[in-house]
Amino acid sequence: QSQQQETKHAHKMAHQGVSGETTYQISGVSEWKNGIYFWESQDGAFWGRFDTRIFINGAYFFENKNKLSNGTHLRKGRFAVKVNLWRVWYMEWDMDMAEGVVEAKDMFLAYHGFKNAYLKFGHFKMPFGLNILTSSRFIPFAERAYNALAFKMGRRMGLEYGRWTDWWNFRGAIYGQTFDTNKNKTKDETGGGVAARLASAPLQNATTILHLGISAAWTKPDDQSNIVQFDSEPETKIGDVEILDTDYIRNVDYTTRLGLEGAAVYRNFHLQGEYNLVRLNRLQNLPEAQFSAGYVYLLWSITGESRRWDKTQGEFSQLIPRDVKKGAWEVGLRYSHLNLSDTDAGILGGRANNYTLGLNWYPNPNMVFQLNYTYVSTSPNATGNGFVGDDRFSYVQFMTKFFF
Amino acid sequence: QSQQQETKHAHKMAHQGVSGETTYQISGVSEWKNGIYFWESQDGAFWGRFDTRIFINGAYFFENKNKLSNGTHLRKGRFAVKVNLWRVWYMEWDMDMAEGVVEAKDMFLAYHGFKNAYLKFGHFKMPFGLNILTSSRFIPFAERAYNALAFKMGRRMGLEYGRWTDWWNFRGAIYGQTFDTNKNKTKDETGGGVAARLASAPLQNATTILHLGISAAWTKPDDQSNIVQFDSEPETKIGDVEILDTDYIRNVDYTTRLGLEGAAVYRNFHLQGEYNLVRLNRLQNLPEAQFSAGYVYLLWSITGESRRWDKTQGEFSQLIPRDVKKGAWEVGLRYSHLNLSDTDAGILGGRANNYTLGLNWYPNPNMVFQLNYTYVSTSPNATGNGFVGDDRFSYVQFMTKFFF
Amino acid sequence: QSQQQETKHAHKMAHQGVSGETTYQISGVSEWKNGIYFWESQDGAFWGRFDTRIFINGAYFFENKNKLSNGTHLRKGRFAVKVNLWRVWYMEWDMDMAEGVVEAKDMFLAYHGFKNAYLKFGHFKMPFGLNILTSSRFIPFAERAYNALAFKMGRRMGLEYGRWTDWWNFRGAIYGQTFDTNKNKTKDETGGGVAARLASAPLQNATTILHLGISAAWTKPDDQSNIVQFDSEPETKIGDVEILDTDYIRNVDYTTRLGLEGAAVYRNFHLQGEYNLVRLNRLQNLPEAQFSAGYVYLLWSITGESRRWDKTQGEFSQLIPRDVKKGAWEVGLRYSHLNLSDTDAGILGGRANNYTLGLNWYPNPNMVFQLNYTYVSTSPNATGNGFVGDDRFSYVQFMTKFFF
Repeated sequence: QSQQQETKHAHKMAHQGVSGETTYQISGVSEWKNGIYFWESQDGAFWGRFDTRIFINGAYFFENKNKLSNGTHLRKGRFAVKVNLWRVWYMEWDMDMAEGVVEAKDMFLAYHGFKNAYLKFGHFKMPFGLNILTSSRFIPFAERAYNALAFKMGRRMGLEYGRWTDWWNFRGAIYGQTFDTNKNKTKDETGGGVAARLASAPLQNATTILHLGISAAWTKPDDQSNIVQFDSEPETKIGDVEILDTDYIRNVDYTTRLGLEGAAVYRNFHLQGEYNLVRLNRLQNLPEAQFSAGYVYLLWSITGESRRWDKTQGEFSQLIPRDVKKGAWEVGLRYSHLNLSDTDAGILGGRANNYTLGLNWYPNPNMVFQLNYTYVSTSPNATGNGFVGDDRFSYVQFMTKFFF
Repeated sequence: QSQQQETKHAHKMAHQGVSGETTYQISGVSEWKNGIYFWESQDGAFWGRFDTRIFINGAYFFENKNKLSNGTHLRKGRFAVKVNLWRVWYMEWDMDMAEGVVEAKDMFLAYHGFKNAYLKFGHFKMPFGLNILTSSRFIPFAERAYNALAFKMGRRMGLEYGRWTDWWNFRGAIYGQTFDTNKNKTKDETGGGVAARLASAPLQNATTILHLGISAAWTKPDDQSNIVQFDSEPETKIGDVEILDTDYIRNVDYTTRLGLEGAAVYRNFHLQGEYNLVRLNRLQNLPEAQFSAGYVYLLWSITGESRRWDKTQGEFSQLIPRDVKKGAWEVGLRYSHLNLSDTDAGILGGRANNYTLGLNWYPNPNMVFQLNYTYVSTSPNATGNGFVGDDRFSYVQFMTKFFF
Repeated sequence: QSQQQETKHAHKMAHQGVSGETTYQISGVSEWKNGIYFWESQDGAFWGRFDTRIFINGAYFFENKNKLSNGTHLRKGRFAVKVNLWRVWYMEWDMDMAEGVVEAKDMFLAYHGFKNAYLKFGHFKMPFGLNILTSSRFIPFAERAYNALAFKMGRRMGLEYGRWTDWWNFRGAIYGQTFDTNKNKTKDETGGGVAARLASAPLQNATTILHLGISAAWTKPDDQSNIVQFDSEPETKIGDVEILDTDYIRNVDYTTRLGLEGAAVYRNFHLQGEYNLVRLNRLQNLPEAQFSAGYVYLLWSITGESRRWDKTQGEFSQLIPRDVKKGAWEVGLRYSHLNLSDTDAGILGGRANNYTLGLNWYPNPNMVFQLNYTYVSTSPNATGNGFVGDDRFSYVQFMTKFFF
């Protein structure tokens, strides 16, 4: 019997990859925080959680000039494991499988043994822009605004330093390419650059938060082809049409992004805006090209909740319903603008203005039902994907987000 | 020291996405039920589990007329996380990765705060047919019968209402397309329809269960192409040949499905049968087309187990071995028929009859070894994938299913 | 109220797939062992763990004759769940998603109710070679040596028997094809063969371990095409170039592999080497072809750690740092050789010699930072992927591995 015990144990150990003796051992506990399950060691040095996200999206278009395809789809189907190990090391493994395509999302490790600071290495979002950096779970509209859709740098392989106090947050990163890029047999994958963001909340009290931020990024094209392209859907992914599109812009030496952000929270009102400027410096004496985008939105939590300022991120955190039976209700209004045309540079990607009215229901901290009505107005050059420009149309979009 | 503690804490919180304060917190426990690991909150309002499934499949054909490829493959490689949150909300994230292709399976949320009822929204199986709805883990043969292979609607984006008492179960759903469908740039993804199923067990006592059920579904084709196709492998996926195949049927206005089901359990004997009728209504005055399929099987649990009736699903639940050392042994016999030919409509997809003898060993509630011998007899028009019809052949198939 | 409780319970049960009553129930505990989280039943009969692996890789080439692409990429992005159920059954579900391609890795179940022995069924690595079998987490260089890259059989669908004592370990397997192979409509998937490995550690004491091993494998080509190909990158996957490549070798009847391995551990020094010989027997009186590869490496743990011998695997286990604040430091030197040319057989795949100097930092049992400098010298026939042979070049490669 004891022999069999030993056998079992030996085999068990072998398969665990904890072969030989167990040098370090500590017992665990578990708890649910705001609806998220955590497993933790008793001393708090180790913990883990999942980050599963299902976003179901659908849209119906009111459109005469162009044909847009109504439909529903899985906007996100993410599964992540996030752990903290040996007190000072933090790691994430994160995939998305929406549309049947698997994509690497956050894949990094961070050392946070410093006071109010960390070093992060791997694949993650570059520090640029408030809306882009805010988790998709916490975005108060179905999709982020034009500036994020057109100018996002995405997750990239990089090294980031972050530091904060109670009223400011700084992040700076150097980076290469995304993990989605195929291995490149014929060209160097030498794209990359540097990005930094400084966010501050000089005023924070029981009723009021004032937030100001600035970001800048400098990027070399993703490989030696020196090609850059910017495009955007009309703030919905349904229909899969990038109505604004610069097409390939060749001979780009480097891209510079500038971002300004501001927000003011007063009780259950939240006003927020951003402006992004993107400039391309080109080779062969080609003229510079410049694009821009911006948005401003106002949120009103009918049920009285407000978002707090998260100093460790320099972002606003999740809206937590006061009552998990009735949930929280929120109304939002957003104006958003994108300009992908630069006549002097001969690039006519088009311009668009969007006006969105949104209604959100947060039954509990694990879910939100979002309903958006959006009116879109495009310029004559907004002719991406074969669209006819100078168009005015609208759509109703729902987004059901649940995560755990 | 306390400063460092605070730093760690702040960073930890930030990364958890539980930024700011934790409003709702409750500690957890864990347990294994019938071999499945559950993590739960102490008040039972929150719980979670995995649903991992590995199905290993192989077949060897005895066939002279046509060449079928013997082989083995991964039939299912699924990983799911299923959670219950805030007592009344239930969610699933579920993927399959068999054949190196990732597919979205169950991706839904359900509200079950009603008495004996729920509302389900997302991607899940439409309520039609007993065999189709029963979990693949609990199917007593290597594959489901022809009716399920040929006529299944699959998982679709839908909204379902379910309700039950001790002796009946009703489910009704409206639905759109599957999540696997690519975003469609040029056509509306307006396929969909309605489906409903009523199952009852008017007789349930210690030795006997009588089950009766009826299902109906009405479906518009998946997009504006108005194309529908039905096909089926010979109750094995090995060889990857759809020997029965209607090819594209064009100008389909809508499809109607009707399903009848019956089952009788007496002690360790289980008799079950289904009949499906599918009718296509066509545009341009084309004649209606009609197809049918059905099966009947008898199971005998040598070791004495029987399947219980699950009122919340209107299905039979898992066979749980009485003895987890020796396991449970079961013998099954199935006759299955498929008719994809409708001469009046000019569609000659072929007919087939299958006779299957199966032996199952369930060592414990987490696994089953299945061995099937199947004799297939096809009609002259069973010529899918280039097969020569009017064929008689047989095969031995094994399916090893383990799940946790 | 009690009715609602019942409703909730019924629904909860239904969705858990633990329908009907729970026959077997046992409560659980959790702990972290060497940085790995385990959930376990109180009687130890059930347990589970994750095996998540993120490997971030980059290389910079010093090369004049050929163009190799510098870059970084995600070398591994694996997620696995491993469980032990009912005391004697062990199961793994394991996927990789590096490069956006999902691959089935370990997908098997094992019965280990025997004394010091087990039976394994499913998809796993065939028993051949020390370096190939050792987990990628524990490999002391960025990549395995040429012999593993060129001659690995990979994971395959198979049945393995393993048995061990304190000083030897035997594994024998019969196998078919890999799970990545597509279903084959036109040819039998009858590839496969047998493999066996015997490893022993006749001398094991407090300071010294002596390891000797021998492996052999016999393989039929993967399908009826009778084609075999061997190739290898220059011990880095960056650049994605198989500089040594036999191209398609046709009319192969079967392949025989022979492997010899030896290792000696003395305190914090570890010397290890392997030699592989591969012989192809060919149809149509074509001459036999023979290829070979080998490596020898020396490791010096500056901080004094050593790897233990794992009798259940016949492999060396993980290096566990003595101090999880400073971590462990290790220096390694490896010579590696590959010969894919057989002049008599008219196959000129090329030869290469690699010299690698490596530095490893293991901050804790969950991670390692590896930095390698490698000098490569190739023969005139090392012309895979369009490379110009007779080349001498070097590269610096980093590999950051973290796993939990």
